Amino acid sequence: MYTLLEAQNLVEKHIQSLSIPDTPPELYEPVRYILSLGGKRIRPALVILACDLFDGEVASALIPAVSIEVFHNFTLLHDDIMDRSERRRGSPTVHVKYNENVAILSGDVMSILASRLMNQAPGNVLNLVHDVFTKTAMQVCEGQQLDMNFEELLTVSEVEYLAMIELKTAVLIAASLKIGAILGGASQRDSEDLYEFGKNLGIAFQLQDDLLDTYGDPGVMGKNQGTDIMDNKKTFLVIHALGAASPAQKEELITWLEKKDFDPKEKIGAVIRIFDSLNIKEETELKIKDYYQKALSNLEDLNRPEERKAELYNFASFLRTRNR
Amino acid sequence: MYTLLEAQNLVEKHIQSLSIPDTPPELYEPVRYILSLGGKRIRPALVILACDLFDGEVASALIPAVSIEVFHNFTLLHDDIMDRSERRRGSPTVHVKYNENVAILSGDVMSILASRLMNQAPGNVLNLVHDVFTKTAMQVCEGQQLDMNFEELLTVSEVEYLAMIELKTAVLIAASLKIGAILGGASQRDSEDLYEFGKNLGIAFQLQDDLLDTYGDPGVMGKNQGTDIMDNKKTFLVIHALGAASPAQKEELITWLEKKDFDPKEKIGAVIRIFDSLNIKEETELKIKDYYQKALSNLEDLNRPEERKAELYNFASFLRTRNR
Repeated sequence: MYTLLEAQNLVEKHIQSLSIPDTPPELYEPVRYILSLGGKRIRPALVILACDLFDGEVASALIPAVSIEVFHNFTLLHDDIMDRSERRRGSPTVHVKYNENVAILSGDVMSILASRLMNQAPGNVLNLVHDVFTKTAMQVCEGQQLDMNFEELLTVSEVEYLAMIELKTAVLIAASLKIGAILGGASQRDSEDLYEFGKNLGIAFQLQDDLLDTYGDPGVMGKNQGTDIMDNKKTFLVIHALGAASPAQKEELITWLEKKDFDPKEKIGAVIRIFDSLNIKEETELKIKDYYQKALSNLEDLNRPEERKAELYNFASFLRTRNR
Repeated sequence: MYTLLEAQNLVEKHIQSLSIPDTPPELYEPVRYILSLGGKRIRPALVILACDLFDGEVASALIPAVSIEVFHNFTLLHDDIMDRSERRRGSPTVHVKYNENVAILSGDVMSILASRLMNQAPGNVLNLVHDVFTKTAMQVCEGQQLDMNFEELLTVSEVEYLAMIELKTAVLIAASLKIGAILGGASQRDSEDLYEFGKNLGIAFQLQDDLLDTYGDPGVMGKNQGTDIMDNKKTFLVIHALGAASPAQKEELITWLEKKDFDPKEKIGAVIRIFDSLNIKEETELKIKDYYQKALSNLEDLNRPEERKAELYNFASFLRTRNR
């Protein structure tokens, strides 16, 4: 039985030895670059763990797992262009290091490469695996579009926000588990349960991201506190606060959200004071707990011996207790 | 037996009735928009003709054919961003009509949609069809990268140029035929022959594009003569001229190519005069004839009754004699 760490290491080794063409270098060097920036390789590791859970042949899940990671990095690459982000994992983003055209085109080729790698799934499940993969990939694009739409809107409901992060973040985590389960020979019922587990965990994961950005320990996080507030991002915290605020608090919050010129410290402090008065930290923690419980219940439903699920419980708890 | 026109009409009908999600509209409306701009639907029609040539079931080739057209339109959409083109088939390009982020993301979702549609190829050839498709799709990206590289270079050899247009234009035409042949049940040998036919015809097609831009009849073309010259594009004509020119002519040509401020008519006239003195029109026509002959010879080699190949001969002759 693979541990999460063993699965991550296995995947990392295969990403490092992935055969990517050399020419033209302008096209393929950025692909190697973004894949070399690291990351926790959570999604491909989940493909491995899910396959292993059903006693599937892990070797047959390796290339599909790498495919998921290549796809994930493609979305990061293109999202960084759209969001005008300059740093990714402590290094310059592709469109900053190279240029925007190179970033568009090398992202395009990564997306196709991901599909080409997925085509190496065994023939008997190829159609099914590819169906889950392409459906999910389209949903991730839908999530990114909704996220961009929300930037232009002042009022986004909690339901809309949760639907957005489900698409943008959670479905790829869910699909990683489902694809691993299919490769491992799971029944449709079991692969669906695992999908739901991943989806609920993915939503909890993103809500925690929102929470940590504002309430995390900057020393532990390795980045400044309150970057989401500074960037006027529509996080769960802001949306929940706008819903719960008194008219006066709402007006104050909106004033801060719309302010173009501000002292960062002052703005972050003011917004956190509003959050605090509305118990936003506690409310968000409750919501996270809610999704986390749902995920655990999906895992309990799963028709496998409890001791075989240990690594997935560990994984859930690892996400739950992370502080960065 | 399908005629080219019947195949085009069949494909057009299926593109019009293609089920594309509605939400978020910002993501999917541009997909519908670019697919509605028309075009000759040559590539998907070739999938149909090739399948039919081997007595394959045309119904099973329809969705893969549409996939190829969706992919082709995705490349146009993203190329237009990279090339800063403002018009496509007489209408505003997607990044002009909407915005650049929308164009990046709706292109991304189109590329995935193409892959999702290709996944509907019959199970027994799915892996093979998907292998040809993804390999070709990566090559098209490589071709676009080389094309962008050439813009920055003054000296590009004829061999390099031909390799670029093979990747950017010819391989997708070739792969359309090969995928159709595979779907039709062709032998590997026959599907390779058909691929070579498409590749040589595709190169001839692009060279003719270069020729028509400078020497075509503006009235027939529906666009101005010499747009490539004005845009300093590295066409076959320019590359051949730089190779054949005397030192003095070369200097004059380079001066024009590097000029930032110019009177369009004066520049086009001067460059055409250099071309004429070097017989560039005739040399290009010879090259086109060369590739066209190669294509016909590939078609002759193909192990099918000559009368069954009639539509492909017609297609080749349609491309050969086009004047716009």
